[in-house]
Amino acid sequence: MPGRLITFEGTEGSGKTTQISLLAERLRAQGHPVRTLREPGGTAIGEEIRHTLKHSPANHAMTPEAELLLMNASRAQLVREVIRPALAAGQIVLCDRYYDSTIAYQGYGRQLDLRMVQSLIEVAVGGTRPDLTLVFVVPQEVSEARRRVRQPTLPLSLKRDRFEEADRAFFDRVAQGYQALAAAEPGRVRLLDATGKVADIQAAIWDLVQPLLPGKGRPAG
Amino acid sequence: MPGRLITFEGTEGSGKTTQISLLAERLRAQGHPVRTLREPGGTAIGEEIRHTLKHSPANHAMTPEAELLLMNASRAQLVREVIRPALAAGQIVLCDRYYDSTIAYQGYGRQLDLRMVQSLIEVAVGGTRPDLTLVFVVPQEVSEARRRVRQPTLPLSLKRDRFEEADRAFFDRVAQGYQALAAAEPGRVRLLDATGKVADIQAAIWDLVQPLLPGKGRPAG
Repeated sequence: MPGRLITFEGTEGSGKTTQISLLAERLRAQGHPVRTLREPGGTAIGEEIRHTLKHSPANHAMTPEAELLLMNASRAQLVREVIRPALAAGQIVLCDRYYDSTIAYQGYGRQLDLRMVQSLIEVAVGGTRPDLTLVFVVPQEVSEARRRVRQPTLPLSLKRDRFEEADRAFFDRVAQGYQALAAAEPGRVRLLDATGKVADIQAAIWDLVQPLLPGKGRPAG
Repeated sequence: MPGRLITFEGTEGSGKTTQISLLAERLRAQGHPVRTLREPGGTAIGEEIRHTLKHSPANHAMTPEAELLLMNASRAQLVREVIRPALAAGQIVLCDRYYDSTIAYQGYGRQLDLRMVQSLIEVAVGGTRPDLTLVFVVPQEVSEARRRVRQPTLPLSLKRDRFEEADRAFFDRVAQGYQALAAAEPGRVRLLDATGKVADIQAAIWDLVQPLLPGKGRPAG
């Protein structure tokens, strides 16, 4: 595939979305065709699934297995409808979450069997793997504080979706999941200290992205 | 589990729904606690998934993999939220479609890898298998004619959902899938000639259901 797939991971409030926008701008300024996407969602069908997952009135009763299958349904659609055609057309695809989220959240966080989780991911992505995955690492207190700042006029209870309501032990396990993924695939999955200044984090991201750009060769590892 | 799970299969327009109602009535008249369900759906989350699968404006673009994962997401929720508690409470659960539909439609019909289909079903049902599965067999012409009669004031194009629009070769493969399932599990999966009179079909169903009822022992096979 002539394009590149770069995915952004981390807990809510880790600053991914801001950094994706900045990176997209910089790539476009250099003349690269860029496509930004988010998971779950990114297609009409995926956005319906996102609504069921995140905002359905019934979703407090959702079982971990249904959640896992819905996440991968949205992903299966995104891969075939958007990501593969974009990569075939030489685009740089920046995706806000991808399958590492499922391993970290549903596998480590909800403690579903990891081999089962991996086999569902394989059905959804069928070999469409990221060239680079950036994991934004922030302490839980920072992530919580950023989420609160985001919508200052709302009471805290209304700023949370189902995932954000999960407890601290859950988020500790998610963070451990990301660490394990980085340890298992150090060439692809890079942990990024996301507590610093926006400009410094963007510079660190650029150092990792630049060698991957078409015509510039690929990094070792 | 003290309850019983009986599932009803076959192409659209094969008469399942009528027969489920009649059977539920007869069981209730004998004092059995009965729960009727349908797939996809049967829970609040499952009904949202059903809408995405069958009536979303975007669903003509749905990939077979997304469809397969959505079907099983609805099923995972139904099994844990409704079917298992009902069986534990001693109810007779009558389900309009269950995992054999996925094998017949997504496996045989859409020609997805059967082992992959089976492994997703396993994630969704986790061992909750029917005591009896009745497959309603009708020739395609009968099934098409019955669907047309159902909503006589609408033009044919408006009476069809996405599954009903699939072509005849697809429905031939679905029918072959059901035959293969009955051959593989003759004790559980029973093919039923559904071209006759409603009362005769109901009598044939009753002959198969009666030996399964709590306190009456289980059939051989």
